[in-house]
Amino acid sequence: MDPRMGSGEFDLIARYFAPLAGPGALGLGDDAAILTPPPGQQLVFTADAMIAGVHFLGDDPAPDVAAKLLAVNLSDLAAMGARGVGYLMTAAWPRDLDESWIAAFADGLGEMQAGHGIALLGGDTVATDGPLCLSLTAIGELPMNSALRRNGARLGDGIFVSGQIGGAGVGLRILRDGLAGGAELDRQAAIDNYRRPQPRLALGQSLRGLASSCIDVSDGLMADLGHVAAQSSVRMEVELERVPLSPLADLIGGAVGAVTAGDDYELAFTARPEDENRLLAAAAGVAVTRIGTVVTGQGAVALDGSGRPITLPRSGYRHF
Amino acid sequence: MDPRMGSGEFDLIARYFAPLAGPGALGLGDDAAILTPPPGQQLVFTADAMIAGVHFLGDDPAPDVAAKLLAVNLSDLAAMGARGVGYLMTAAWPRDLDESWIAAFADGLGEMQAGHGIALLGGDTVATDGPLCLSLTAIGELPMNSALRRNGARLGDGIFVSGQIGGAGVGLRILRDGLAGGAELDRQAAIDNYRRPQPRLALGQSLRGLASSCIDVSDGLMADLGHVAAQSSVRMEVELERVPLSPLADLIGGAVGAVTAGDDYELAFTARPEDENRLLAAAAGVAVTRIGTVVTGQGAVALDGSGRPITLPRSGYRHF
Repeated sequence: MDPRMGSGEFDLIARYFAPLAGPGALGLGDDAAILTPPPGQQLVFTADAMIAGVHFLGDDPAPDVAAKLLAVNLSDLAAMGARGVGYLMTAAWPRDLDESWIAAFADGLGEMQAGHGIALLGGDTVATDGPLCLSLTAIGELPMNSALRRNGARLGDGIFVSGQIGGAGVGLRILRDGLAGGAELDRQAAIDNYRRPQPRLALGQSLRGLASSCIDVSDGLMADLGHVAAQSSVRMEVELERVPLSPLADLIGGAVGAVTAGDDYELAFTARPEDENRLLAAAAGVAVTRIGTVVTGQGAVALDGSGRPITLPRSGYRHF
Repeated sequence: MDPRMGSGEFDLIARYFAPLAGPGALGLGDDAAILTPPPGQQLVFTADAMIAGVHFLGDDPAPDVAAKLLAVNLSDLAAMGARGVGYLMTAAWPRDLDESWIAAFADGLGEMQAGHGIALLGGDTVATDGPLCLSLTAIGELPMNSALRRNGARLGDGIFVSGQIGGAGVGLRILRDGLAGGAELDRQAAIDNYRRPQPRLALGQSLRGLASSCIDVSDGLMADLGHVAAQSSVRMEVELERVPLSPLADLIGGAVGAVTAGDDYELAFTARPEDENRLLAAAAGVAVTRIGTVVTGQGAVALDGSGRPITLPRSGYRHF
């Protein structure tokens, strides 16, 4: 037998993944999928990998792992102002992984697909002796030359963030370290923030033409604003007291902990202060908070209540 | 420190991968890459994963691993008749992997890119406690509605294959099992077949409008023709004596071993017998051999010299 895949792998694809395939996928029966963007549209692409025990916890429910894998990629599309079209996925399954886990994982993909109007376009499934290793390439679409970029922040722009910050960081600490404290409902919400982030696709699209730069909060709010500062050659000053915090942020050190924790998948963006009302209207129900200002200089800095820079612990990873 | 990535990861991307980025990659500085296919062109997509110890050997040279990762994906584009445009890659590096390995891997990508006129568009790099896990999504382009599909084989069509079959299978057995025999030059060629397959992109493009169906030989010639048979609802009869074999095929059981070994990345396709001369001219220097005929029925069968079906050992994996 071929060492690369168990004999049941043909069946796995037919049973669990073929039903997720979109029209361009050609039923997963060909060498490649085909896509034609409508006239005037551009395609955008992003890819992220997730490893069991690193990007999600080994005992996270399979549908949540699937939802997060899609969400982190869709969040990158959201940050560009794109809508989702489809995705390709490769999965290296541990040899002892139960088929019921794969079935539940496919269910999670299916549910998430339906919610975002996207479909599976292709991929590959292999066996590994290591931990579960997932990789997803998401494809989105947007009108020509309308992409939100990281390099457009202008001096005097306001800095804004959607939703609340720090929830995913709290959720991770609860799940991984048994962090105590807080009301049960808030604890559950924080766990959901970590396991099932909600990509801000509608918000991202509504920001086209309004935001001068945009990024999704994956590495941590301050680290991500640092990427925008670097690409835009400006300094991002964040007033820490203005950052909208998850109800349980105090459990991880308050605002300092929240803005250096990752995985929130909110959008952080810049826009002209005079556009704030248009922007709030465009956000259509998503909470958007102004947290700072773009100034001359470099880097992203957090200011305390007296306007003094605070030294933050360094946080670390990024996609490319 | 973030558990997901070593502190040097930013540097790794800047040092080794940013130089590989194409225009659409936005310098790897944004959330996603942007692509606009020219008018009248469609985009095609394929993704494959490779795991150390499964799809390549742990001591394969890094540039060869990079070249093979790109080649297996470009081969899928070739089978559709597409030209390559770019790719996204995710890599989960073992924590103890030496940086010099990553440098050599990036060199291998760069050399392969240059040879095929493609560029890196994006991706992700993470750390893992498991084996090296690589995933690549390749993007190609072709004129609207000209894709070579698996479902177009017609009764009476000839079955053709490019190059020679079995070389990669011999190379794998030499490297993995210490298989003895054969002249040194032939042994080295077989190892190259396994480590550095040559995707048949020019041939695939020249087959548009001539071939009725096409697939690349990854699972093994007979298994791959079986996929075409299934998609086209026909029977593929291969005369085993006609299959062009690698010089050392006898070391792995001759034609039977060669047509059930994988990883050759030649193209197998069908075309009208009367188009054979046009086809040989279009192949422009790539050897193309007629090996059989499309008939009524199902499955792919190998016939012996007397036209009797031979029972072959089953081979196993496929992409989706």
